[in-house]
Amino acid sequence: MITRMSQLFLRTLREDPADAEVPSHKLLVRAGYIRRAAPGVYSWLPLGLRTLRKIENVVREEMEAIGAQELLFPALLPREPYETTGRWTEYGDGLFRLKDRKNADMLLGPTHEEMFALTVKDLYSSYKDFPVRLYQVQTKYRDEERPRAGILRGREFVMKDSYSFDMTDEGLDEAYAAHRAAYQRIFDRLGIDYAICQATSGAMGGSASEEFLAISENGEDSFVRAVDGSYAANVEAVVTQAPEPKSVEGLPEPQVHDTPDCETIAALTSLFDVPADQTLKCMAVMVREPGEEWQLHGVLLPGDRELDPKRLEASLEPAEFRLAEEKDFAEHPFLVKGYIGPKGLQANGVPLLADPRVVAGTTWITGADEANKHITGLVAERDFHVDRFVEAAEVRAGDTGPGGVELTLARGIELGHIFQLGRKYTEAFDVQILDENGKRAIPTMGSYGIGISRVMAVLAEQLHDEKGLNWPAEVAPYQVHVAVANKDAAALEAGEQLVADLDAAGVEVLFDDRPKVSPGVKFKDAELLGMPYAVILGRAFADGKVELRIRGGETKEVPFDEVVSLITQ
Amino acid sequence: MITRMSQLFLRTLREDPADAEVPSHKLLVRAGYIRRAAPGVYSWLPLGLRTLRKIENVVREEMEAIGAQELLFPALLPREPYETTGRWTEYGDGLFRLKDRKNADMLLGPTHEEMFALTVKDLYSSYKDFPVRLYQVQTKYRDEERPRAGILRGREFVMKDSYSFDMTDEGLDEAYAAHRAAYQRIFDRLGIDYAICQATSGAMGGSASEEFLAISENGEDSFVRAVDGSYAANVEAVVTQAPEPKSVEGLPEPQVHDTPDCETIAALTSLFDVPADQTLKCMAVMVREPGEEWQLHGVLLPGDRELDPKRLEASLEPAEFRLAEEKDFAEHPFLVKGYIGPKGLQANGVPLLADPRVVAGTTWITGADEANKHITGLVAERDFHVDRFVEAAEVRAGDTGPGGVELTLARGIELGHIFQLGRKYTEAFDVQILDENGKRAIPTMGSYGIGISRVMAVLAEQLHDEKGLNWPAEVAPYQVHVAVANKDAAALEAGEQLVADLDAAGVEVLFDDRPKVSPGVKFKDAELLGMPYAVILGRAFADGKVELRIRGGETKEVPFDEVVSLITQ
Repeated sequence: MITRMSQLFLRTLREDPADAEVPSHKLLVRAGYIRRAAPGVYSWLPLGLRTLRKIENVVREEMEAIGAQELLFPALLPREPYETTGRWTEYGDGLFRLKDRKNADMLLGPTHEEMFALTVKDLYSSYKDFPVRLYQVQTKYRDEERPRAGILRGREFVMKDSYSFDMTDEGLDEAYAAHRAAYQRIFDRLGIDYAICQATSGAMGGSASEEFLAISENGEDSFVRAVDGSYAANVEAVVTQAPEPKSVEGLPEPQVHDTPDCETIAALTSLFDVPADQTLKCMAVMVREPGEEWQLHGVLLPGDRELDPKRLEASLEPAEFRLAEEKDFAEHPFLVKGYIGPKGLQANGVPLLADPRVVAGTTWITGADEANKHITGLVAERDFHVDRFVEAAEVRAGDTGPGGVELTLARGIELGHIFQLGRKYTEAFDVQILDENGKRAIPTMGSYGIGISRVMAVLAEQLHDEKGLNWPAEVAPYQVHVAVANKDAAALEAGEQLVADLDAAGVEVLFDDRPKVSPGVKFKDAELLGMPYAVILGRAFADGKVELRIRGGETKEVPFDEVVSLITQ
Repeated sequence: MITRMSQLFLRTLREDPADAEVPSHKLLVRAGYIRRAAPGVYSWLPLGLRTLRKIENVVREEMEAIGAQELLFPALLPREPYETTGRWTEYGDGLFRLKDRKNADMLLGPTHEEMFALTVKDLYSSYKDFPVRLYQVQTKYRDEERPRAGILRGREFVMKDSYSFDMTDEGLDEAYAAHRAAYQRIFDRLGIDYAICQATSGAMGGSASEEFLAISENGEDSFVRAVDGSYAANVEAVVTQAPEPKSVEGLPEPQVHDTPDCETIAALTSLFDVPADQTLKCMAVMVREPGEEWQLHGVLLPGDRELDPKRLEASLEPAEFRLAEEKDFAEHPFLVKGYIGPKGLQANGVPLLADPRVVAGTTWITGADEANKHITGLVAERDFHVDRFVEAAEVRAGDTGPGGVELTLARGIELGHIFQLGRKYTEAFDVQILDENGKRAIPTMGSYGIGISRVMAVLAEQLHDEKGLNWPAEVAPYQVHVAVANKDAAALEAGEQLVADLDAAGVEVLFDDRPKVSPGVKFKDAELLGMPYAVILGRAFADGKVELRIRGGETKEVPFDEVVSLITQ
């Protein structure tokens, strides 16, 4: 296949687009792969569309390899199924909602658990039909608050979403493992540097869940990795490694001290000359379980740790929380700002939520529940009782992960997410299947997504250099870029012959045959567009030689006659 | 490629869906190709998606063959460009409109002239870049008042739309001719019985325009064909073959007659004992040019013809019309109901719009503008003057078309539409291109569409029989359906060998390997699903023979050993 740049609908830009901040966005626009149509909404120009389709096909091959069957759901969906699962409301402003001419509520699908569950219910009724794995490559819509970075976070985007349906939990485990392995093969084939992160399942519901994150300093997601690569997790999913509980026997009794104007951890550590991790930060927090009233809770953290609201949110889900405000303090006069302690909270019936490090037998300096007073030697599970351990403290580089490994912080871009949903959706739609004993059973479900258009941005982000893009051969729009940079008619003729020979050998070729464009511009365009190989018919062509440039690698002068065999090998 | 029916996500139905009226809808649902998600919105199940993709690829091949380049625009679009061309409003309730979280107006694209014109403006600036032909295969949205017949008229549907941009009118003619020929190749390859109809260009604007209509009694569009196939046209586009004007010299003077209670054409022809086509129907009609007031007009038709409102509408466009109502009669007291005549209208300054048959020298019996009086011998262009000829009369089978050919009426389904748009859109967006002389010029544009998902419905509609679907080989989900209908283990084993051999020979095979399904059900499913060939390993397998069934054709018993070579030949 040969595409001639003299014909190609393309204009490369020398300047970065004004709204672009990250390299992938700048380069994909400058190289004429994508073009903005509206905020967070992009058009795919010919080169971009070819790359997108090739990524789709890599994903398709690996999905077919695990026995998943492709179908295609509409993007325009009725409200009712999403009402049934509560997501019509839960999605908030993130959902594009609209009304049709008959005033019926509709939405643009952000994800399709509802539709797949309903279709399986429609078509299947016996355990013999299971397991089944289904997928689609489809255009999705989310009204992102901050669409950014071109196709990295768009409002209209292409996604591969698959869904597994199994009669047993073991079946779900298998489907999950099969998808996990397929995703590894996909991202390995694409040459992406990624980590598989333990994740919380959030609004999707369900149990096990992992995220595939591309390592990128421009990523929006922070995550945590073991320095030895043995472990990675979303910050929300990091489990604090708590010390073993100790006996409280023989520990000294607590003592109350006058500590005037000592309302911060810093003041406290300075006053008692101890490290901050021996003090206990005691925060008043309001928590609301779904459908209930706000209720006062205490959150206990080692004094050297800040509260990470996202971690506490994930830990408390589905309950929500907020820090106590003036009115809450006013309603609970036993709360003495700057001097709150676990004893006073517990004495007033306030549930205590604590960092896992606050185990039995640990000793703390904390507030004495009186103005200008602190208490030392307060022992967990002797002087106060933790009602529930929560992951609320910030995670820091140098923290210890599972097995004692040292953790570092990293940033990443979400490529994919796999979920064990369980029966949340199949129960919502009452998907009843007759089991081997003729009894009704509800199948269990998994949901697995890859952001196809985002993968393209990630490839641009991870593999570019200062000169331009650099595609892996498998998804490059063309494998070889041939440029004639010699005004000699024989060179152009030889170029024609070369691209014909490459085409005959099954190589996809982008041919820069533009007659009035300078060699310098042709070289710059070749680097910007980023095909894996470029062949330049330049000055040395007079000596029967051409340049073979490996994008991001070496440049060799090779005999013209050998270039086809060098490339096809 | 082998797909096993024991695994395939499919359930065939014996009953027609309750909401289905036409065969394509019934069969595509019963055979598990599509499934309804909302009114006019369908999901593509595995078999349906395979067929859809194959149709897309036939279209792609022919578009690439005429040098069109594929790109892909979003479906979610900003309001502004459609505001610029007026289509934000013109589309009325047919447009899906929505607001994003920032309250910006957006729409779901019904067609993309605006976006393509804007993108060409963005990328190109010199005549050297032209001509350019661009296309996309994309999901479109129209909020149809009456979505019907499954994917025949859906609200979310797949369309191929292409756009040509040329610097000269001759270039546009070439682009139009290239698309016309490509469309013929596409529909010929698909084996569709179709007609190319002259069309009016309607809301799209522009000049030349033709529709590709699939001949179908379930079609929504009526059209007119020459009995010899030399001509076809939309009813709106049929041009009346008018007689030559005649001299008015020596014709008798008109005479007024008392005609009490003679307010219909039937009464008039009976009274004067003449054929209806010698009488002149004279109708009071209100016409409004864009931005102006309603104005009274007379419409003159031969008495044997009814008014066809769609034809008059197309003829008057962009003006609109309505029949005069009581208030209009009240405002124009010279209008005498049942006795209106052209003389009285003209005397009162009312413009006369006439059927082309009302040429100079024709003689008519018509109203005398007085109650209970008619006039005979009224001669066109002697006693009254036609201000403008319009196509307002119904078209009938037996009418005469261009070159005197006899016309018949037919029904069809619109498969595609090609338009010479001219500069309507490029002017709206001020697409200025430097021409050979360095002067600014506006390129001229063509727009060409094929309803891909509708083509699938048309194939089902034209090619089915009472037993089921019958796909052309090029777009069938699989070329061969192999069914084991013999409980002998050797038969199943032979079936496995056969599908492996067919697969090795590059044939796509659907393999009915379901162990507990009866031969009868397997035969019925094979017919319903409609692959071009079915191979049945049945009773005769004991004698080394299998049945080779050509869908919709003959069934032969052939030696098992020969079946692969028979199919691949």
